[in-house]
Amino acid sequence: MTSTDIQAYMAHVGAAARAAATQMAAASTAAKNGALLRLAALIGEQRETLQAENAKDIAAAERNGLAAPMVDRLRLNDKVISQMAENCVQVAALPDPVGEITNLRRRPTGISVGQMRVPIGVFGMIYESRPNVTIEASSLGIKSGNACVLRGGSEAIHSNLALWRLVQQALREAGLPAEGVQLIETTDRAAVGRLISMPEHVDLIIPRGGKSLIERISREATVPVIKHLDGNCHVYVDASADLDLAVKVTDNAKTQKYSPCNAAESLLVHAAIAPAFLPRIGAVFAAKGVEMRCDAAARALLQPLPGATVADASEQDWAEEYLAPVISVKVVESLDEAIAHINRYGSHHTDAILTEHHPNAMRFLREVDSASVMVNASTRFADGFEYGLGAEIGISTDKFHARGPVGLEGLTSMKYVVLGQGEVRS
Amino acid sequence: MTSTDIQAYMAHVGAAARAAATQMAAASTAAKNGALLRLAALIGEQRETLQAENAKDIAAAERNGLAAPMVDRLRLNDKVISQMAENCVQVAALPDPVGEITNLRRRPTGISVGQMRVPIGVFGMIYESRPNVTIEASSLGIKSGNACVLRGGSEAIHSNLALWRLVQQALREAGLPAEGVQLIETTDRAAVGRLISMPEHVDLIIPRGGKSLIERISREATVPVIKHLDGNCHVYVDASADLDLAVKVTDNAKTQKYSPCNAAESLLVHAAIAPAFLPRIGAVFAAKGVEMRCDAAARALLQPLPGATVADASEQDWAEEYLAPVISVKVVESLDEAIAHINRYGSHHTDAILTEHHPNAMRFLREVDSASVMVNASTRFADGFEYGLGAEIGISTDKFHARGPVGLEGLTSMKYVVLGQGEVRS
Repeated sequence: MTSTDIQAYMAHVGAAARAAATQMAAASTAAKNGALLRLAALIGEQRETLQAENAKDIAAAERNGLAAPMVDRLRLNDKVISQMAENCVQVAALPDPVGEITNLRRRPTGISVGQMRVPIGVFGMIYESRPNVTIEASSLGIKSGNACVLRGGSEAIHSNLALWRLVQQALREAGLPAEGVQLIETTDRAAVGRLISMPEHVDLIIPRGGKSLIERISREATVPVIKHLDGNCHVYVDASADLDLAVKVTDNAKTQKYSPCNAAESLLVHAAIAPAFLPRIGAVFAAKGVEMRCDAAARALLQPLPGATVADASEQDWAEEYLAPVISVKVVESLDEAIAHINRYGSHHTDAILTEHHPNAMRFLREVDSASVMVNASTRFADGFEYGLGAEIGISTDKFHARGPVGLEGLTSMKYVVLGQGEVRS
Repeated sequence: MTSTDIQAYMAHVGAAARAAATQMAAASTAAKNGALLRLAALIGEQRETLQAENAKDIAAAERNGLAAPMVDRLRLNDKVISQMAENCVQVAALPDPVGEITNLRRRPTGISVGQMRVPIGVFGMIYESRPNVTIEASSLGIKSGNACVLRGGSEAIHSNLALWRLVQQALREAGLPAEGVQLIETTDRAAVGRLISMPEHVDLIIPRGGKSLIERISREATVPVIKHLDGNCHVYVDASADLDLAVKVTDNAKTQKYSPCNAAESLLVHAAIAPAFLPRIGAVFAAKGVEMRCDAAARALLQPLPGATVADASEQDWAEEYLAPVISVKVVESLDEAIAHINRYGSHHTDAILTEHHPNAMRFLREVDSASVMVNASTRFADGFEYGLGAEIGISTDKFHARGPVGLEGLTSMKYVVLGQGEVRS
């Protein structure tokens, strides 16, 4: 497409989304759940078609020399297809957030004032290679009563188009507008530039992907963006921590899985407990091949451990999200130093204190300025499903609108409702 | 100041605000209320000093030929001073929003997950001539545990500086950082440009003032802005409305006061009730000198009324916020037409349906996309105090973060808190 064609195409997509949003917002819970359950059935029925289209993407990826893990992410094997169908069934089972009225209170004037939860309108979702995100985003969009415009990775275009055709069929059969979910059919990158700068048609952008992509989208978007850039999550082992608990939780936070954004990347240890704690966790890390980048005090305690890979931490290490078997380690003199360090170098994602001391736990919860703050639990719990949201469309480290794991509620807004019997203002 | 000086000055103010924010966030309720009550006392004690400084602004305004109503807005007479002191006492009496933990629920894994209300950090407030906004913003900033940077109208600079000195004294005497509230001491307009583009120091901007100022700030700010541009509020009189109620409420919504943003600017009337309703409200408007800009159907019913000022509405009239004794009037064929008209021409501020028909009331509440939607009540109720927020720092027509009247809660964010006993993710 030429640049003019892209402009016209995106304006058309945007206008269709805005028009569909009105119908999606007014849709009954039964219609929305009907579409989701029909979509689950269609995904099962159309398994072969989906895999045939997916094979085109896989073949192209292999032709283009994509690395094997990247090709794997693309693949719609039987397990991924079953999970997509199951995802739709689960979202159908979630309570409908739309229309809920809360805090309805009678005022002295006689009016009753409350707040009603309503869809945001239109959101744009920008993601990378995994085609199952097409179904995740569609199902949350439908249930939350929004229209959405999806832009998946170009390497998954055949898979995404095939999935999207099923979404549209399910919407239509449930009496909802097919334009309730649209997928950008061109892989031209200029389409993303338009998607993020049409405030008249799109109310919100949710990007998932690499940091540089998300930074660029945040910088250039003219509408709000729900996002996080880094997950530099800390575990702080307080002077009064239970040693066994601290070893177990720190180990889990770092090593249960290295790639998620909620894995720990930095370990702070109070000086009073460091001589007892660091050799124990250091032995665990040494056994698992986790490199430790240390300040001088931590290094002195960890260096002697057999098999330990220990290095000096640079200033940059305190801010690093490794997503790998590497952790920075620092000994601190006080809770104050720990909190200040986390607020300075952290990414405001998820940070945990391990302590038996109640006032320190409460101060940490209150003063660490992060989307999730934890006491005596692994940072790996920072997740929409673990929090009971029933779903997760992303994680936000911003302070506005949605913070932390974002589920259906993050795709809604509140408006005030006032119920009167003819009251007037005097 | 030179441009370089302004940069350095604002960077200094911003860094001081960020540093103070940490202390303000951790401040006890007793310290914050202590500062507010001390401020109330100081305002009373320093009445003469305040009025002497205010006299300088008044004299300058008169020298510069400011219109009398503008000069009046500047004036710190005894009544305004008492109200400022009373405002501080009222804010002290409000519940502290900070630290509240809600929805704490045990998850199957054993962790408990809830949300804690926390201050946003630093907000910048940009306002025009009324010096009492200095106290309103200071008191809400202190109570919500934020640091704030205030930028008042240059014509009120002496009054604002005098008020700010009392705020700083009250903060200091309560053991809180004086930089918890800062006032920009220069009237150079370049300072505003810096204030709205220092995301490292300022998290939120709240502008109050003319539409063009707010538009410019929204366009240029690199942080979120809580704002509304217009209040083109509608009253829709449904076919089944109670006639007496409809006349009373429509009259109040339009004429109780013409200048507020929540006054009605447009009247939609269902065709079935127009012949009975329009002559009655038209007579009221005629008696009060309210000009009616009509579509053909409304004009046919209103033109014959003795004393009525009736004109044809232009397309522009449907979108107009008059803030004056003028109203646009249109006859619609259905509730659908009314909702579509409001969503198209309205400003998403406040809109009301007058009806006895429950399904229509519920559809209007759900489908009109405005910050406040009302049934059988005057749009004039859209106000933080009337809604029971106890205070109001502004009104937002955006869908993100805060929507409708904004009180203390709008100056806070939520973060997830997770309380465990050593749970790990499996």
